[in-house]
Amino acid sequence: MNVLIVYAHPEPESLNGTLKELAVDTLKKEGHQVQVSDLYALKFKAVLDETDFPERMNRELFNPIMEQLNSIEKDVIPQEIKQQMDKVLWADVLIFQFPIWWSNFPAILKGWFDRVFYNGFAFNLADMQLYDNGPLKGKKAMFSFTTGAPRVLYTVEGPHGEIEQLLNYFHHVMFEFVGMEALPYFGIFGPGDMSLKEREAELDRFQEILKNI
Amino acid sequence: MNVLIVYAHPEPESLNGTLKELAVDTLKKEGHQVQVSDLYALKFKAVLDETDFPERMNRELFNPIMEQLNSIEKDVIPQEIKQQMDKVLWADVLIFQFPIWWSNFPAILKGWFDRVFYNGFAFNLADMQLYDNGPLKGKKAMFSFTTGAPRVLYTVEGPHGEIEQLLNYFHHVMFEFVGMEALPYFGIFGPGDMSLKEREAELDRFQEILKNI
Repeated sequence: MNVLIVYAHPEPESLNGTLKELAVDTLKKEGHQVQVSDLYALKFKAVLDETDFPERMNRELFNPIMEQLNSIEKDVIPQEIKQQMDKVLWADVLIFQFPIWWSNFPAILKGWFDRVFYNGFAFNLADMQLYDNGPLKGKKAMFSFTTGAPRVLYTVEGPHGEIEQLLNYFHHVMFEFVGMEALPYFGIFGPGDMSLKEREAELDRFQEILKNI
Repeated sequence: MNVLIVYAHPEPESLNGTLKELAVDTLKKEGHQVQVSDLYALKFKAVLDETDFPERMNRELFNPIMEQLNSIEKDVIPQEIKQQMDKVLWADVLIFQFPIWWSNFPAILKGWFDRVFYNGFAFNLADMQLYDNGPLKGKKAMFSFTTGAPRVLYTVEGPHGEIEQLLNYFHHVMFEFVGMEALPYFGIFGPGDMSLKEREAELDRFQEILKNI
């Protein structure tokens, strides 16, 4: 299969960097084709703004959703975005590797969705290509992340609340919305507090998941 | 009271722009002091990266949480971030005005949290200044947003799921985590499908909330 890893961590030597490398190696050994979008290395622009649309259909009022559709119809999508779209179309599986910051995506990864998942590409409001009719139907997608806090803080009883609710919400409105199947997430909670052995067990767990993807 | 409006929409003539202006006018008429952080106008950098930390404590491995604490101790916070921190400290109430994109914040607003809410400023892990002991205790904060889809799509039975769950989660892990009280959100759902009269009713509703803030 073709696997795209969208990777968002500023430090290559971080645990997220290790997980990304482990995914590339493991998947290749299993015979898969792998591409990586290393958003920090690409200095990927996070902010959806007017400069994404050099040929505006409406120069008076900036409406991103309408301009996205127009850019697709006129084939004037910026190269940086087009490259990401091509990778998405190529992929059978998408893996998003990132640290949880503020119980959410780092801005550079949120910006990847804002800027790449165009109306007319990942969904189409005009003819309701959403969910089961989503344009990216047939693909699978997975969040793989690390958190600063241990798992117990992310439970219903814990101070942060149950993170699974949040992830299920994101699965639904980001993956299933465009037609993709959400794979169960892989999370390493509070690796800073783990022993070397515990960390290695987490890497093994990730590797097993990747082998069965 | 002092009110800071953190505003994140690329189009000044958008409904979000209108809501921001309405908030400024209404709050001033009520006798409050108001400041705005217009993130798009500021071309606010969304991505937390190494360039935020010119004087690194660790040049081998980039750990944002540790570098934030170090920057505060050495008083070497970049001016752009310091300005936002000063506004936060000045404010009694923070209002975040933004469009919901992918059931979440636009990247530029997520990046404001990633880059401004330093460890050592908005929270402190070392001595557990979190939640009721959070450094921003005594302040109130509120999300004010618009969505493309109507309210019915954001219910438990609707395709997107109940958005209130998501907002409650964000209230907890972003506002309450740093000690702030979360005010009830204000959302305008699917304004594109509303009549002029319905939109005006929504603006009136917002104005009433602002008068009683």
